[in-house]
Amino acid sequence: MSAAPTAPPPPHASLQDQARTWFESLRDRLCAEFEAIEDAQAGGDAGRFVRTKWDRPTQDGSPGGGGVMSVMRGKVFEKVGVNVSTVAGEFSPEMRARIPGADVDPRFWASGVSLVAHMCSPLVPAAHFNTRMLVTARGWFGGGGDLTPMQRDSAEALADAADFHASFRAACNRHDPAYYPKYKEWCDRYFFLPHRNEPRGAGGIFFDHLDSGDLAADFAFVRDAGLAFLDVFPRIVRRRMAVPWTVEQREHQLIRRGRYVEFNLIHDAGTLFGFKTGGNIEAILMSLPPEVRWP
Amino acid sequence: MSAAPTAPPPPHASLQDQARTWFESLRDRLCAEFEAIEDAQAGGDAGRFVRTKWDRPTQDGSPGGGGVMSVMRGKVFEKVGVNVSTVAGEFSPEMRARIPGADVDPRFWASGVSLVAHMCSPLVPAAHFNTRMLVTARGWFGGGGDLTPMQRDSAEALADAADFHASFRAACNRHDPAYYPKYKEWCDRYFFLPHRNEPRGAGGIFFDHLDSGDLAADFAFVRDAGLAFLDVFPRIVRRRMAVPWTVEQREHQLIRRGRYVEFNLIHDAGTLFGFKTGGNIEAILMSLPPEVRWP
Repeated sequence: MSAAPTAPPPPHASLQDQARTWFESLRDRLCAEFEAIEDAQAGGDAGRFVRTKWDRPTQDGSPGGGGVMSVMRGKVFEKVGVNVSTVAGEFSPEMRARIPGADVDPRFWASGVSLVAHMCSPLVPAAHFNTRMLVTARGWFGGGGDLTPMQRDSAEALADAADFHASFRAACNRHDPAYYPKYKEWCDRYFFLPHRNEPRGAGGIFFDHLDSGDLAADFAFVRDAGLAFLDVFPRIVRRRMAVPWTVEQREHQLIRRGRYVEFNLIHDAGTLFGFKTGGNIEAILMSLPPEVRWP
Repeated sequence: MSAAPTAPPPPHASLQDQARTWFESLRDRLCAEFEAIEDAQAGGDAGRFVRTKWDRPTQDGSPGGGGVMSVMRGKVFEKVGVNVSTVAGEFSPEMRARIPGADVDPRFWASGVSLVAHMCSPLVPAAHFNTRMLVTARGWFGGGGDLTPMQRDSAEALADAADFHASFRAACNRHDPAYYPKYKEWCDRYFFLPHRNEPRGAGGIFFDHLDSGDLAADFAFVRDAGLAFLDVFPRIVRRRMAVPWTVEQREHQLIRRGRYVEFNLIHDAGTLFGFKTGGNIEAILMSLPPEVRWP
């Protein structure tokens, strides 16, 4: 009922349109690349993305933003979701203590792109990528990308993981030599299942609360992280997608996907954040694999 | 390193052997009944329970108890697990504040039986049942049973749910007319997915921290709850298992199982309790369905 306390907006507030435009254009490029992969492998049976818009409901009917889910179910990509969302509102009292700047002013703005790919072939790794910009009384970027090979110790899986890391390492090193070791380690720590005492996959990078003081440099790094993923993951998919696989490998993939579900539902902070801020449930849980086994 | 503080044991401590024996004999009766159902439906292809013993590891190598998993993968029961466990140890400092009596003495003893049945036919409901006795400086019983029909609003599903509730209502009413309404409501509240705003299934009963002051009466109620489940669930299975079903119904079942997974991994206190007390991970996650879809 009372007016929200005011605080000077962080410099990130001036970047809102550009950030949103970047995340949406990266989404378009990722979707186009994935559809081209479908065309190359499946010809007339190629999958296509289907887009669904959603609005974020607010209690008082004020504009809360929303997003667009893009989902493709194809012959190479068993299920891939690429979500963009741009939302604004006020954090609940519970969240205010936990989000930088939200103790000063509960209002927030957030925009980002988020991708999860579950592949038909057990020889093609699953992948996750996201980047986002948050604006409260402070502003920052977060995101990362990580790879989940299914035949974890095979030479092919190790080679894929090495290439994936090399791409992100190069992107990081163009900005700050401290980034890659720090963000790789953060990723390893984050994507870990303590109840299984095992990593979710082969890692990648993970970063949050990035605000170096140089807004343009931070935004450039975030863009480069996106381009690194756009370069390396399609390359990995293309070189593995036509390799024949066995039913035993498929069964193993479905079991490994169970670990993915366990991580996302038990541990993933992004999933829990989505639930608590009234995110779109279908968009949040689009990360879950299409078919899973706990035999 | 220091000796644990001592507190007078609750009367439940004298019941440990009897409680354990009851839970194990109920396990035997449930397994025998389920194998008889397999025989009736599948003849020579009938499933059989496989038992696996596990020991609870302790940091100092002292005896921590353990359990036995009984799992059957059959033609009627796609995957059914019946676990018994009897464990003892000390609660971690984190847990001590949350468990009755553990603030006085961190040592605990717990024994129970836990069952989850996922069925081949989408026309047969999934079921969950468990009962347990806990002993700290206090002692109590907990447990319950609930049914998860897959075709939720069909006449058959409603009839199954009505029978399931009637059986538990009768068991409750033999002990205290206040039990059924209270424990039914507790069950509805517990087995609810707030992120979907929907119940997990058709409910049943749920109770915890039962210590009326009359130990013999409480134990008799717990036994009757077990007998109620042993009576009603096999009856429901037998009358539905031979009904032909469609691939659409099966697909719907696999999607509904996704909700089951979401509940167990996001919300279920028993799952989280198991993780935090060094329970056997395979036994805890045996509740997860064998095949699941998030299309």
